[in-house]
Amino acid sequence: MTDKFEQLKSRLARISDINASAGVMGWDMRVMMPPGGVQARGDQLGTLGGLAHEMFVDEEVGALLEELAAEFKSMPFEADESSIIRVNMRDYEKQVRIPTELVIEMAQVTAAAQQAWAEAKAKSDFSLFAPHLEKVVALELRLADALGSPSGNPYDALLDQFEPGLNYQYIDGVFSGLKKPLVELIEQIKAHADRVNDDVLKREYPEAQQIAFSKEVGAALGYDFKRGRLDKSAHPFTSPNMHDARITTRVDEHFLPSCVMAVIHEVGHGMHAQNISESLYHSGITFPGLAIAESQSRFFENIVGRSRAFWEYWYPKLQAAFPHLNDTSVDTFYRAINKSEPSLIRVEADEVTYGLHIMLRFEIENELINQRMKVANLPKEWNDRMEAYLSVTPPNDAQGVLQDIHWSGGGFGYFPDYLLGSIFASQLWEVFKKQHPDIEDEIRSGKFSTLLDWQRDHVMKHGAKFTFPELSERATGQTLSWEPYMNYLRTKYSEVYGL
Amino acid sequence: MTDKFEQLKSRLARISDINASAGVMGWDMRVMMPPGGVQARGDQLGTLGGLAHEMFVDEEVGALLEELAAEFKSMPFEADESSIIRVNMRDYEKQVRIPTELVIEMAQVTAAAQQAWAEAKAKSDFSLFAPHLEKVVALELRLADALGSPSGNPYDALLDQFEPGLNYQYIDGVFSGLKKPLVELIEQIKAHADRVNDDVLKREYPEAQQIAFSKEVGAALGYDFKRGRLDKSAHPFTSPNMHDARITTRVDEHFLPSCVMAVIHEVGHGMHAQNISESLYHSGITFPGLAIAESQSRFFENIVGRSRAFWEYWYPKLQAAFPHLNDTSVDTFYRAINKSEPSLIRVEADEVTYGLHIMLRFEIENELINQRMKVANLPKEWNDRMEAYLSVTPPNDAQGVLQDIHWSGGGFGYFPDYLLGSIFASQLWEVFKKQHPDIEDEIRSGKFSTLLDWQRDHVMKHGAKFTFPELSERATGQTLSWEPYMNYLRTKYSEVYGL
Repeated sequence: MTDKFEQLKSRLARISDINASAGVMGWDMRVMMPPGGVQARGDQLGTLGGLAHEMFVDEEVGALLEELAAEFKSMPFEADESSIIRVNMRDYEKQVRIPTELVIEMAQVTAAAQQAWAEAKAKSDFSLFAPHLEKVVALELRLADALGSPSGNPYDALLDQFEPGLNYQYIDGVFSGLKKPLVELIEQIKAHADRVNDDVLKREYPEAQQIAFSKEVGAALGYDFKRGRLDKSAHPFTSPNMHDARITTRVDEHFLPSCVMAVIHEVGHGMHAQNISESLYHSGITFPGLAIAESQSRFFENIVGRSRAFWEYWYPKLQAAFPHLNDTSVDTFYRAINKSEPSLIRVEADEVTYGLHIMLRFEIENELINQRMKVANLPKEWNDRMEAYLSVTPPNDAQGVLQDIHWSGGGFGYFPDYLLGSIFASQLWEVFKKQHPDIEDEIRSGKFSTLLDWQRDHVMKHGAKFTFPELSERATGQTLSWEPYMNYLRTKYSEVYGL
Repeated sequence: MTDKFEQLKSRLARISDINASAGVMGWDMRVMMPPGGVQARGDQLGTLGGLAHEMFVDEEVGALLEELAAEFKSMPFEADESSIIRVNMRDYEKQVRIPTELVIEMAQVTAAAQQAWAEAKAKSDFSLFAPHLEKVVALELRLADALGSPSGNPYDALLDQFEPGLNYQYIDGVFSGLKKPLVELIEQIKAHADRVNDDVLKREYPEAQQIAFSKEVGAALGYDFKRGRLDKSAHPFTSPNMHDARITTRVDEHFLPSCVMAVIHEVGHGMHAQNISESLYHSGITFPGLAIAESQSRFFENIVGRSRAFWEYWYPKLQAAFPHLNDTSVDTFYRAINKSEPSLIRVEADEVTYGLHIMLRFEIENELINQRMKVANLPKEWNDRMEAYLSVTPPNDAQGVLQDIHWSGGGFGYFPDYLLGSIFASQLWEVFKKQHPDIEDEIRSGKFSTLLDWQRDHVMKHGAKFTFPELSERATGQTLSWEPYMNYLRTKYSEVYGL
């Protein structure tokens, strides 16, 4: 038994190394690579992705997994060994359905598409990106077909990739429940829009000080810069290798939250990666599904990072970095960074309207993948829905359909996990606060370790051991529910807007 | 036939991609990686190196090479197809002798050793590096044993790795011929040391302006920043992927040549990589042996970059970047950057004394690998020889035996190629000048394209098609000789020092 497990682990270790290499190469492509490298990088990522895939779907891996599953049957569900078998088995059964050529083609096409997206966005010209997106969608359809979908909705196969076990019907159920009270809250806030002014965020904030302040906040929250680094990229992201979990941000010198809130978000992901149990290194079950991942980034970004207690501690330091803030009270600043107003850019949207940005993408993805919408019509469809849901119209595609990198990388089925993450984060916060009723006092006095310790023990250390429903059950004792999220928003925004 | 060649090329392409990935990962390790990543990066590089090795030594690759060698027999020697078979066959015959475990172990051990070297150098504490170097030397002995050496000298097997066909006896023959006239020239210069003063180079040179000026020079020489980039690292190096040939430098704000001359050197390597024939992409015979490589970097660094004509064009621009230079004539500056004086640091040594730095390392490597010298005695042996050859004694190990990164990466047999490169560069220059007698006027007027065009056609575009002797024959019509090098040095330094 031990011998077979060692055989499996040595195979998983090599595959892990290749995937980790592809992770670094992907980070490099988006942060460091000169433009001339794009074609060759596509080849390299194609080869690495193809190799990792080939090595994982090897029949001997399947045979080892099957034998070990039988042998480990009586082991506790949460043990490292049984989890490594269970989760890899689940992934194996998916992966064997995907032809190697498709993996290679996907890596090549998306490498070019990401470069084209960056150029299209810079020039605000959707036509530069459209032919690449057509190819990506066609590949997604082939992928969905290969994976298969019990419900018959090909989008389910894609959703399941990013968070195993989730599907359109389940997500639509949660989102539908949330939609009505959320729209009501947005209406209430709209009626009192004049009560919050965020002009203070649009002053001059030089880049160097923004980066320095963001790094200080990240380190204080517990992000380990010895096992990570912070760089700039077009769209903030985290490269979640557990010993080298790099984060990126962007900087707008005339809108403070662009950088610092993105850093806190990515720090949430980065700490998540850095706090995965060392015993899972090389096991192939390290970084979890994206709704679990987003529960951490959104917990730190919104629930912690946009709280009054948090800024009562940090605001004096922010004033020291930007002395023009000395004329503004922490109360005004706190309400400014929580200003809620329908807007164009998802990553800069407030917590309340954010949900509608996701619901829009969730619907468009479902229609694109079900071939009820054409790529060529995307800009119009996008703009029409922005108008319908949020009463705003993008003045150009850069601020509309081109704003997110995800689709260029083949990330269909990814967006819903952001909102699911927020919903789960609120549920975690509800439980956490019951166990630590003094947490806001701690945060107010600059003590952040209780937050990370709790999340490490309840979520982070488990890596990808548990599915979203399993983890939610274990960490909160409940299944996923939108109510704690809605309660959290209602309480917070009633106070911010004096509703 | 075409079918077999396509089969081979598709295998070589995948191996190329893995090696290119390892190149980027190695660059990242030295330029970007946080310290916590070192162990995992060793695993990743070990896995990539092991995979590339396994895939190359596959029996089917051997069979394809053999069949194609027979079929391509009548093809011209220099054709892409026949060269791809010939050179890969030669490498295959070497590689099959190396056990995969050794490749993996080497990558892991050297990843840790490079990190230890950086720390040991920073603290000037050889004892931090010694245990790692012991391991590296032990692995080098196993490697030499696996490769085999017809002469019985295991060092030959290592030398042949970096420049196929070269061995201790051949190199020792060239170096021995050079040593006496070189020492004589050094003595002559020493007698008139007071004729050149380089104080001007030790003024205040802020980093940002040094980098900006160096980039301008690099771009003017023909380095394509769209297919490369410039960063800082402990030891300057080039990552020579042909579409993404990155260079690094270091900066000393109180010694101008540290950065700018390193950049010109690495720009030579970078342009070399960027100008390899596109038809050799994915063939496994792109970047050549290191003596050929050094012929290009040293050609641009020394023969061009330290010439009077070069600075007659660039010096006014340098003065604009550093206005304190307005009190110094181009003649004084030109002689300053060619000051020759025995010194401690190889990469900052002048062209004349440089050769002795190499001869010292060449001897030490030969003795270490022949187990006639112990790692523990290295600092003493180093310092004694520095005293004997150059009459200087390192005040600490950071400026002595720890100065170079090479050994930490397993680079035994690499150093001699630097000097062989200089020797070859002079021979190329002699031929080139006969064909382009007006070249110095061109350089003086800021035209640098003739230099790159000639080197592209005679050296760069061929990639690794030819061995050092083959290429030397083709490009110069002669075998390697130290005389053009000695003539070049004697002429130049007689003028600089008025001998």
